[in-house]
Amino acid sequence: MDFETYFASELDSVREDGRYRVFTDIKRHRGKFPHATRFIGEETQAVTVWCSNDYLGMGQHPKVLEAMHSSLDECGAGAGGTRNISGTNHYHVELEAELADLHGKESALLFTSGYVSNWAGLGTLAAKIPGCVVFSDSLNHASMIEGIRHSRAPYKVWKHNDVEDLDRMLSEFGPEVPKLVAFESVYSMDGDIAPIAEILDVCEKHGAMSYIDEVHAVGLYGQHGGGIAEREGLMDRITVIEGTLGKAFGVMGGYIAASRNLVDFVRSFASGFIFSTALPPAVAAGAAASIRHLKNSDAERELQQERVKQVRRKLDMLGIPHLDNPSHIIPVMVGDAKKCKMISDWLMDNHGIYVQPINYPTVPVGTERLRLTPSPVHDDGDIDRLVNALSEIWSQCELARMSAAA
Amino acid sequence: MDFETYFASELDSVREDGRYRVFTDIKRHRGKFPHATRFIGEETQAVTVWCSNDYLGMGQHPKVLEAMHSSLDECGAGAGGTRNISGTNHYHVELEAELADLHGKESALLFTSGYVSNWAGLGTLAAKIPGCVVFSDSLNHASMIEGIRHSRAPYKVWKHNDVEDLDRMLSEFGPEVPKLVAFESVYSMDGDIAPIAEILDVCEKHGAMSYIDEVHAVGLYGQHGGGIAEREGLMDRITVIEGTLGKAFGVMGGYIAASRNLVDFVRSFASGFIFSTALPPAVAAGAAASIRHLKNSDAERELQQERVKQVRRKLDMLGIPHLDNPSHIIPVMVGDAKKCKMISDWLMDNHGIYVQPINYPTVPVGTERLRLTPSPVHDDGDIDRLVNALSEIWSQCELARMSAAA
Repeated sequence: MDFETYFASELDSVREDGRYRVFTDIKRHRGKFPHATRFIGEETQAVTVWCSNDYLGMGQHPKVLEAMHSSLDECGAGAGGTRNISGTNHYHVELEAELADLHGKESALLFTSGYVSNWAGLGTLAAKIPGCVVFSDSLNHASMIEGIRHSRAPYKVWKHNDVEDLDRMLSEFGPEVPKLVAFESVYSMDGDIAPIAEILDVCEKHGAMSYIDEVHAVGLYGQHGGGIAEREGLMDRITVIEGTLGKAFGVMGGYIAASRNLVDFVRSFASGFIFSTALPPAVAAGAAASIRHLKNSDAERELQQERVKQVRRKLDMLGIPHLDNPSHIIPVMVGDAKKCKMISDWLMDNHGIYVQPINYPTVPVGTERLRLTPSPVHDDGDIDRLVNALSEIWSQCELARMSAAA
Repeated sequence: MDFETYFASELDSVREDGRYRVFTDIKRHRGKFPHATRFIGEETQAVTVWCSNDYLGMGQHPKVLEAMHSSLDECGAGAGGTRNISGTNHYHVELEAELADLHGKESALLFTSGYVSNWAGLGTLAAKIPGCVVFSDSLNHASMIEGIRHSRAPYKVWKHNDVEDLDRMLSEFGPEVPKLVAFESVYSMDGDIAPIAEILDVCEKHGAMSYIDEVHAVGLYGQHGGGIAEREGLMDRITVIEGTLGKAFGVMGGYIAASRNLVDFVRSFASGFIFSTALPPAVAAGAAASIRHLKNSDAERELQQERVKQVRRKLDMLGIPHLDNPSHIIPVMVGDAKKCKMISDWLMDNHGIYVQPINYPTVPVGTERLRLTPSPVHDDGDIDRLVNALSEIWSQCELARMSAAA
């Protein structure tokens, strides 16, 4: 087989579908985010980032950077090993205690990313609990799906956020069958929020474990940034809370928080945990500083919500169609991969506005979109430039507008 | 099912087998590594680390730390997104160019860890190439095994470093079957090195792709730190070279280097790449600084080799049994999980010497060992304290000695 020809032809068909990803090469400027410099060959362009998951701008918070500088000076760069073989640094231990406290759980465990925490955490539970059946929300993130797939455990996919469908599926299995229900709180691409209390009622009725992915909620919701489950007073009813340090907390890494025995079990059996070099101490120190700050400060969360409201209001005034949802994520719907990319290119080229087109496989074909993430660091001028540019391209392309919401 | 009871009982059996892992909580001191502080509850202890994979002490190199501080000040903490959605920072692009150059390949791709680079890189190739059969060395790392397993591709396991066995297995499949041969250069736990040229001869004979894991070799071997394949002038004959930024380069992350189309193919289809937040810019900047330094400096490699020789010589003089191998890894063989842990504890408690016991599943049962990794930053006094302490416990426990070598 001619491998090179095969790779080239597969890439060609991705290009033909309009799904080929060209990474936008930028340099963020500390203290000036969402403003950044884009690199195009030898040239550069000033851009405003509207699609970051650094939702609160914590990636440039002085406390976070101070903690990272200080830990670099104190401990150096890398951890130097897996957690078991000289790679556990005191900053990891402190961060895990901080995370357990954030979620009101006995224990927490760090992974190198949110992807790995889902893949290894969910995958290990599903694989190792004898006879376990997994019940997965139909819109769960790729990392959860791959973890379930990797476990080889039998699984059922329930209709997105449909508690009755979940209840019905759980009823198909007797009380002797171990059950694990996996879902998210805020769904990344639609920005909708799961009916967590109702899901937990059903889990408890059937004696199922519950596993929630709060990566798009931690730092952002709840009195201390514990996520939607904290806001709704439900953390103690959830078996496993999974989160990330790479979005609202502004750094990198993932984690699970749960009972001491469950966490110790995953720690002891998860290949993706055991055989990975630990996070750099400075990453752990920065993440801990971010969590501590957001445990005690609501200012960033309140300002973010206000910015989100303002963007929505202005989009509505101009009739730019966006998915209504109760979160901070604003999906502006386009519905075509090539058009979505064309609008994104136009915004960048003409206005220095960076909104990545979201195409398949991140979202289903036909639901391509521009996903806006307003943050406390976007000012009124940024917002006006964004909505005016969208209105301009909407007119140019004769795209459908909604009637003005009031 | 009572999940808590199940987790507790599984952990109890791990404890009974002497395989329960207690993480050693340390804080490394920049500029003083391998010296570190161990935390035990409220108390601390000064320790010397003898089991780190920061093989050259690059984790505390001034150029690496300067690059990280500077990038933190310039760009802030996290990347803020996946590579495709605002997370590509110019430091990633520069690092990928540096890595491609290091290995003489057209292109390179970063992952959040070496584990993920193997799991996602190998897994994607094996899953996506129609009819692909994987041929895996029997001692391949867990990350490669899990990647192959995840791909669902058929696979054959060939005897460790046995080129004839590989040839025989490849011969079972016709020329029309796409073949992928996966192996390592330096095997982490035994420290032996693959017969790369012979393996490539066989791959070429059968038209198979070759995938080499050089994580325990990059930075350490070859004129520019390109690994064993560079040292032996074989890089251009290998299809995919996989490496890590978390061992000799002292920071964190993993990568593959290969042809432009192959890398673009993995970039476009690997779930574990597409859906993970990118590495922090400062991590990429630090790793690039480390690679650049080791491309132009042999001093660290030469001093490491000298330190390794000296430890081996002194162990030989005292008859402490260790696996002979041509690499920098010195496995002192114990052969029993509980004894291995007991010796490790004794070294720590009595001499502040930190060598983690290596037990199952990292090595097969019956081959438990202490894995020593001498580095340029271990001085003569450190070495003498280590070998004298080992001799003392060898006498106390009446462990077998080898006859003095040479």
